Amino acid sequence: MIPSPLSLTELKALVRTVPDFPKPGIQFRDITTLIGDGAGLSSSIHHLAKIARAKGAQKIAGMEARGFIFGAAVAVQLGIGFVPVRKPGKLPIKTIGIDYTLEYGTDRLEIDPDAIADGERVVIVDDLIATGGTAIASAKLLRMAGALVEDAVFVIDLPDLGGTDRLHEEGVTVSTLIDFEGQ
Amino acid sequence: MIPSPLSLTELKALVRTVPDFPKPGIQFRDITTLIGDGAGLSSSIHHLAKIARAKGAQKIAGMEARGFIFGAAVAVQLGIGFVPVRKPGKLPIKTIGIDYTLEYGTDRLEIDPDAIADGERVVIVDDLIATGGTAIASAKLLRMAGALVEDAVFVIDLPDLGGTDRLHEEGVTVSTLIDFEGQ
Repeated sequence: MIPSPLSLTELKALVRTVPDFPKPGIQFRDITTLIGDGAGLSSSIHHLAKIARAKGAQKIAGMEARGFIFGAAVAVQLGIGFVPVRKPGKLPIKTIGIDYTLEYGTDRLEIDPDAIADGERVVIVDDLIATGGTAIASAKLLRMAGALVEDAVFVIDLPDLGGTDRLHEEGVTVSTLIDFEGQ
Repeated sequence: MIPSPLSLTELKALVRTVPDFPKPGIQFRDITTLIGDGAGLSSSIHHLAKIARAKGAQKIAGMEARGFIFGAAVAVQLGIGFVPVRKPGKLPIKTIGIDYTLEYGTDRLEIDPDAIADGERVVIVDDLIATGGTAIASAKLLRMAGALVEDAVFVIDLPDLGGTDRLHEEGVTVSTLIDFEGQ
C-alpha cells in the first residue's frame, strides 16, 4: 500500500460538497473526488482497514453501489472475503432479503445466505452514514444469515442525522473517519 | 497483499455457475462465491492489478455495480484514482452521459467529466465481458471526457459472445483472467 497515508483532515478536504442535491437545502457530500485521487482512495482504504482489522473482521459486507467501492478494497487489504449487499433481483441464486423504510416509500436488500458461515464476524463498510436506515437493514439481514454483526465503519458521518445512535441501539458500534456537522 | 496468490485455474473453480439465469438456457457465471473467498478476492485483484500496471494505467474506471468491486480495489493496489461509471441520476454534479443499446431496449451511463485529466491513460476493469456493449459505451464515454482508453481487463471472458473482438474494433485491447466456453 502507500508509505504515508493522508491524514483524516486531508481526506475531508477531498470530499466535494454539492449544494441542493438531491433536493433544495441538502448539502450532498460526494466521494467521487476523494476516490478519483490516488492518495485519497488508498488512504481511505488504509484507515478503514485498520479499524476493521482491530474489530476482528472475518468478512466485510458492503452495500450496493458505493459500499462496493470501499468494502471490497478493505476486504482485499485484510485478505478476507467480501459480501455484497445487493438491490433486489441482482443475485442469480435463492436469496434472503429484507424490506426497509426510506424517507419516501420502501426499499429492499438481498444477500446470498451461503455467503456467511454461522457466527462469522462481519463488519459493514459504506461511504456515508446519515439516518442509518440502510445500515440497520443490512445488519439485520446479515444476522439472518448467521453473521455476528457488531461493527460498521464509514468514511463520512453526518452526525446531525443520528445514524450512529440508531445503529448503537441495534447493537452495532459505528466508527467513522470524518464528519460534516450541520447537515 | 497475499504472499502466494491463487492460480487462474483455482480462481475459475471459485466461480459459481447458475443455470437458467436470468432466463432459460443462460448459464450465469456468478462471482459472488469468488469474492466471498478471501484468497479468491485478493488473488483476483492481484492478477488484474498486474495487468493494469503493465498497461500503464494512470486511472481505473469501473462500471456500476460489480465493476466497483474489482475496479476500486485494483486502483488501490496501484495507488491511483478510481472513476465510477454510473447509472443515470446517481452523480450529484453535471455529468456527461452516453446511451447505448442492450438486447432489449437501451441504457445509459454517466461520469463526472472532471474525473479525468486530458490524455490520462484509463484502464477499464469489470467482472465479465459478454457482448462488450457496456464496455464499449464506457470507453466512448471516458474518451469524451479526454481519457486515453486502450485497455480493458476482466475477470471472466465469455468468448462465444464476441465481446473481445468488438472492443478490439473500437481500439480497446482486452485482457481476461479466465474464460468459459460454450456460453
